[in-house]
Amino acid sequence: MILEVAVLNIKKGLSADFEKSFQEAQSIISSMKGYTSHELKKCVEQEDKYILLVNWETIEDHEIGFRKSNEYKKWKALLHHFYEPFPIVEHYTKVDGC
Amino acid sequence: MILEVAVLNIKKGLSADFEKSFQEAQSIISSMKGYTSHELKKCVEQEDKYILLVNWETIEDHEIGFRKSNEYKKWKALLHHFYEPFPIVEHYTKVDGC
Repeated sequence: MILEVAVLNIKKGLSADFEKSFQEAQSIISSMKGYTSHELKKCVEQEDKYILLVNWETIEDHEIGFRKSNEYKKWKALLHHFYEPFPIVEHYTKVDGC
Repeated sequence: MILEVAVLNIKKGLSADFEKSFQEAQSIISSMKGYTSHELKKCVEQEDKYILLVNWETIEDHEIGFRKSNEYKKWKALLHHFYEPFPIVEHYTKVDGC
């Protein structure tokens, strides 16, 4: 299991629109092979900031299966114009015993 | 429900020691009032980098109940010397419909 982590900074004042678009976009990611679960959460300390956490079976399910798909083009069209700067996406894996 | 997020950068070469200390420290946080669950995960792309995610019932359970406790002193003694730089901790909350 791999956790994708992306901290999302949204252009000032566009958070409500972003949340609306994300509600549509989440059905895209949820339908992908290897997708397990996701959470989008809003930062308490900073306005227009979110964290997206997605659990995937493997890193390839995210980086190849999803990012090279036609579905990703729809995801991108719905969401990418809200981000500033463009987010750094990282992957995290289990630590034994933790 | 509040999600505490901390990206932890560990001093070069000390990751194995940090993981061992965290295994001890996690019993401290797990026993606190308002604690719900936690995950420590290791970054795939960058060495000596982790993410700690802790679910709390309220932000006060973390910031007051935990951070002002005697248990926090033990947590600090076990973990804080591994971090460089010292982590920024943020809190995230539910987005309706996401």
